[in-house]
Amino acid sequence: MTITRNWLDHAAGSVLIEFGKTKVLCAASASPGVPRWRKGSGLGWVTAEYAMLPASTNTRSDRESVKGRIGGRTHEISRLIGRSLRAVIDYEALGENTIQLDCDVLQADGGTRTAAITGAYVALADAVAHLRSTGALTGEPLTGSVAAISVGIIDGVPRLDLPYVEDVRAETDMNVVMTGEGKFVEVQGTAEGAAFDRAELDALLALAEKGCVDLSRLQQEALAR
Amino acid sequence: MTITRNWLDHAAGSVLIEFGKTKVLCAASASPGVPRWRKGSGLGWVTAEYAMLPASTNTRSDRESVKGRIGGRTHEISRLIGRSLRAVIDYEALGENTIQLDCDVLQADGGTRTAAITGAYVALADAVAHLRSTGALTGEPLTGSVAAISVGIIDGVPRLDLPYVEDVRAETDMNVVMTGEGKFVEVQGTAEGAAFDRAELDALLALAEKGCVDLSRLQQEALAR
Amino acid sequence: MTITRNWLDHAAGSVLIEFGKTKVLCAASASPGVPRWRKGSGLGWVTAEYAMLPASTNTRSDRESVKGRIGGRTHEISRLIGRSLRAVIDYEALGENTIQLDCDVLQADGGTRTAAITGAYVALADAVAHLRSTGALTGEPLTGSVAAISVGIIDGVPRLDLPYVEDVRAETDMNVVMTGEGKFVEVQGTAEGAAFDRAELDALLALAEKGCVDLSRLQQEALAR
Amino acid sequence: MTITRNWLDHAAGSVLIEFGKTKVLCAASASPGVPRWRKGSGLGWVTAEYAMLPASTNTRSDRESVKGRIGGRTHEISRLIGRSLRAVIDYEALGENTIQLDCDVLQADGGTRTAAITGAYVALADAVAHLRSTGALTGEPLTGSVAAISVGIIDGVPRLDLPYVEDVRAETDMNVVMTGEGKFVEVQGTAEGAAFDRAELDALLALAEKGCVDLSRLQQEALAR
Amino acid sequence: MTITRNWLDHAAGSVLIEFGKTKVLCAASASPGVPRWRKGSGLGWVTAEYAMLPASTNTRSDRESVKGRIGGRTHEISRLIGRSLRAVIDYEALGENTIQLDCDVLQADGGTRTAAITGAYVALADAVAHLRSTGALTGEPLTGSVAAISVGIIDGVPRLDLPYVEDVRAETDMNVVMTGEGKFVEVQGTAEGAAFDRAELDALLALAEKGCVDLSRLQQEALAR
Amino acid sequence: MTITRNWLDHAAGSVLIEFGKTKVLCAASASPGVPRWRKGSGLGWVTAEYAMLPASTNTRSDRESVKGRIGGRTHEISRLIGRSLRAVIDYEALGENTIQLDCDVLQADGGTRTAAITGAYVALADAVAHLRSTGALTGEPLTGSVAAISVGIIDGVPRLDLPYVEDVRAETDMNVVMTGEGKFVEVQGTAEGAAFDRAELDALLALAEKGCVDLSRLQQEALAR
Repeated sequence: MTITRNWLDHAAGSVLIEFGKTKVLCAASASPGVPRWRKGSGLGWVTAEYAMLPASTNTRSDRESVKGRIGGRTHEISRLIGRSLRAVIDYEALGENTIQLDCDVLQADGGTRTAAITGAYVALADAVAHLRSTGALTGEPLTGSVAAISVGIIDGVPRLDLPYVEDVRAETDMNVVMTGEGKFVEVQGTAEGAAFDRAELDALLALAEKGCVDLSRLQQEALAR
Repeated sequence: MTITRNWLDHAAGSVLIEFGKTKVLCAASASPGVPRWRKGSGLGWVTAEYAMLPASTNTRSDRESVKGRIGGRTHEISRLIGRSLRAVIDYEALGENTIQLDCDVLQADGGTRTAAITGAYVALADAVAHLRSTGALTGEPLTGSVAAISVGIIDGVPRLDLPYVEDVRAETDMNVVMTGEGKFVEVQGTAEGAAFDRAELDALLALAEKGCVDLSRLQQEALAR
Repeated sequence: MTITRNWLDHAAGSVLIEFGKTKVLCAASASPGVPRWRKGSGLGWVTAEYAMLPASTNTRSDRESVKGRIGGRTHEISRLIGRSLRAVIDYEALGENTIQLDCDVLQADGGTRTAAITGAYVALADAVAHLRSTGALTGEPLTGSVAAISVGIIDGVPRLDLPYVEDVRAETDMNVVMTGEGKFVEVQGTAEGAAFDRAELDALLALAEKGCVDLSRLQQEALAR
Repeated sequence: MTITRNWLDHAAGSVLIEFGKTKVLCAASASPGVPRWRKGSGLGWVTAEYAMLPASTNTRSDRESVKGRIGGRTHEISRLIGRSLRAVIDYEALGENTIQLDCDVLQADGGTRTAAITGAYVALADAVAHLRSTGALTGEPLTGSVAAISVGIIDGVPRLDLPYVEDVRAETDMNVVMTGEGKFVEVQGTAEGAAFDRAELDALLALAEKGCVDLSRLQQEALAR
Repeated sequence: MTITRNWLDHAAGSVLIEFGKTKVLCAASASPGVPRWRKGSGLGWVTAEYAMLPASTNTRSDRESVKGRIGGRTHEISRLIGRSLRAVIDYEALGENTIQLDCDVLQADGGTRTAAITGAYVALADAVAHLRSTGALTGEPLTGSVAAISVGIIDGVPRLDLPYVEDVRAETDMNVVMTGEGKFVEVQGTAEGAAFDRAELDALLALAEKGCVDLSRLQQEALAR
Repeated sequence: MTITRNWLDHAAGSVLIEFGKTKVLCAASASPGVPRWRKGSGLGWVTAEYAMLPASTNTRSDRESVKGRIGGRTHEISRLIGRSLRAVIDYEALGENTIQLDCDVLQADGGTRTAAITGAYVALADAVAHLRSTGALTGEPLTGSVAAISVGIIDGVPRLDLPYVEDVRAETDMNVVMTGEGKFVEVQGTAEGAAFDRAELDALLALAEKGCVDLSRLQQEALAR
């Protein structure tokens, strides 16, 4: 996995995260003010949108802007990324600023949602630093870091980070979002074929915990560069 | 929790499931044929749509048909219900028939998605029986039963089936879908406030396992009536 | 015909009206304030939305929220219900409050629009009482009651309240909305097959007048309970 | 009222109908084939769409294509025009041909929907003649003629064909569609202010009957030219 | 080419421009105020919308309001008309007023976009005069006039104003918008078949310059009437 | 300007074109078959879609998929790219294959549409080579190459390839698309401020001709690598 910071010139933070053949461009745009329902609260807001370029997939997929509506999967992943990042935000320290994350999949080969969360955190950290450098905030709105990993069971064996061809054969698919301190932010396990038992669930959780520790270290190294 | 079967006259299966103040009407419509991408495969299909009536919530919510688009939460829950039911379907035994579940929340007071899954399974079982009685299928497309429960941590204590007022204060919220045999179909845990540790996760899972056993029994009792 | 009041817990007024196999849930939500174009006028507003659940019909109908647009029939009936209720509203006595009626057809077997109007009036009366009990208004915004009935000609014979199977064979179909005082609010007659003459029109009107007297009494009895 | 036939060059039938300041362009396009649900039935189809140009009204109205959705009033009138014309069509004699009427209001000053029906009938008759001249049909699909008029009560007095400034003050507004033989196709009466009694309804119907006789004669004269 | 002013009664300026079989109705609506992003600037705004009636074309085209979205061609032409008119507007002299041009094609036979611009200028001039007569502005917001013409190469020969049947066989198609003073506002040349060389481009430009001089004179004559 | 081929793994052709700070990802997806209206003709089809990522601009722009509609500018540029590429395609040699170009702007700093065309041609050439290598076609569907450049007048001086900050001050803006043989495919000149005269137009065309020769050479070099 490689994390390239400052891939764009305009955004407050931007990261190209690559992971096997998967490439996700994560951009964090910071702007003063918050959505209407939050005005005057003194609290900030962080939100996210996820999308795939049409040619990012094996077979070209239609553009959602052309279809005139966002699909269920896109909605679901956008919401997951937003929730995951908000888990490490202190809204009060952020003040009435909004940070909008855009995670656009340039090429997809499995694990795009977890790569997006992992990259988006780094872009978010850069955007926070940018806001601090411009004097838009003074405290520390980040209460920790967050990273995500996908694990699955293939032929009965729990495995980390499946590429697409293996992902489609997985019996169980699980996405786990964890903080740098090793706590869970989100656990989403789905039986694709047969239902799974508690022992399998425990094995997947253990594998994911280990994987998130590695990702967390890679994030810190990228931010230290 | 009460499950009233045959609440509607037209649908192949229909259930009004009530749970505290929550009321969800689950209707299963059966029709010959499958979506285009599945034609000629000999396999059936099961899908689901979830929606809330505008006046079902404390404060009236706008109608999605009037807004002209389906929100992310609606999409997400519709997909969850569909996946959960498909986990206990043998597509081959179903043959080229489609069963469409409609879960409409008439009144919402927490746990609507898990009530919807639990009720939808019963409506699905009735629709399968209906298809069998009309000769549209002969085997058994149901490989088991499925039920769902929500659990959460409030003030540090894991709790079952939170009503809305408690749900909004929950630190962690988890929806668990299990088969009647006690295996997991879906686990979705979300840290609403602070991230949760492995011990808390285990406590929630244990509570959910126990709750699903009870729901599963209630489903069997309803189907036996 | 049965009218069950307070079928929901959250709405200011709510009624389940049943009529043959037809079941319509009518909910009245009251909120302070009026639409933008009416602000500062001192006048209130009453509006309505009608919709059918997908499984309410003999053959499942697609969800309008999924299609992304509201059909002509839905639009037309929503407007009819709104106009009918506004005919018995004194906007000044209502003050700058809005009452929104939601009429959702849970099961359809003919006469859903007239059942919706008849039930919605009762929910509206309950919502007005609720507003008075909270001190949001003091006078009487209701200038009368309103009820609606459908009549039709089958095989040359005028008939009241046709169920769906007869409705589709009707030569002429008429919906009549009347006040409790026996005046007309809306008359909508449509030749489905052959055009109708004045004598047939008069016979239908006479039948509708009689039917509305009965409905009006049932409304008063329900409100007296 | 003036009716100008063949106002356009491409359409099978086209009429500019003027009525006070109201101008409606009615075009009938004929094409072989019918909608999918009617294929192979041997029966034809007639349908209509109504719309107003943005600058047709006193104050410019937004374009529905720009808003991305058709409003309820537009839907309602389009359906009314279609039903009215279909009342004088023998689908079998029409054969599997479709005639699509487009009624576009170039300038609006009251009575646009009734002018549209009256003009559309003439365009429809021309389109039928055109189909006959090309050999696409041989029999007579028109079973009669159809015309429409609006009547209203102003200051207690029933009046024909109100211009817009009077229409908005009308206590009751009624649109009546009749065949050339003096039978009713559609009666739509609406209390705008106070509800109306049977005597007022009768007076309006009598006035409308007389008005439709005149319109019917004007249509025949135009077609004879 | 004929230009009929004041074709409508409500709009501040309105023109029916006819050109071969092409008929475009251009209406200019004036209203106080400007779009939100321009408020308080002291500057006015001019914008335009173009559309075709369904029956205006040889074969009926679907209504964009029914399709729920505006097509690319419509968007493109609306933007071109707006830009062309704004080229002769002094926003400061216009003050915070908005003039909205609606160019609706009643019948299409080639050159609709250039006819629309040419007619819209005359409607705009009338709207400006109207604003002056009501005291809404005192200076002269028009810095000149603007007209447009289409030219093309057919069988190697440059030609002015192609009707539709010739337009579709043109090898190159060019739309040119010019001021009354003979300067260019917009040049849009497109190779439909083979690419064109500089000599052909020069021939087309020369032809267009000549054509615009004629149109400009016709506009002045119409305004002088 | 740099052109990086094969930037993606799945698409038949893909190019990252960079130009100052502008970065556009051009992907060509090839698929057997053509749109319905072209089936059975033996002819191929080439089409294009253009879009900007939200964070590509100085200030984040809203996502068109979220707005539910494509803006006029996007439509216009998509159409321009498609037309430009089709100018060098021999549909017969392409056979019934479709090549879809997706030009996604990752970062925008002026000249995105011309960069998109220039890059898209290279991706198209790679897609054609890919189709040939798979045996999907045997002849040469490319009749030449195509490149595009933007030129403008700033402070009275014609200039090539303006970055965004200069582009907004340009008095005249022109986009020129040319073949490798030096013929014009598209000329689009727009007066942003004052109208331009023939001498200025000639100066811009001369500059563009020179620029396109350079771009054409860069394309050939990239394809030769």
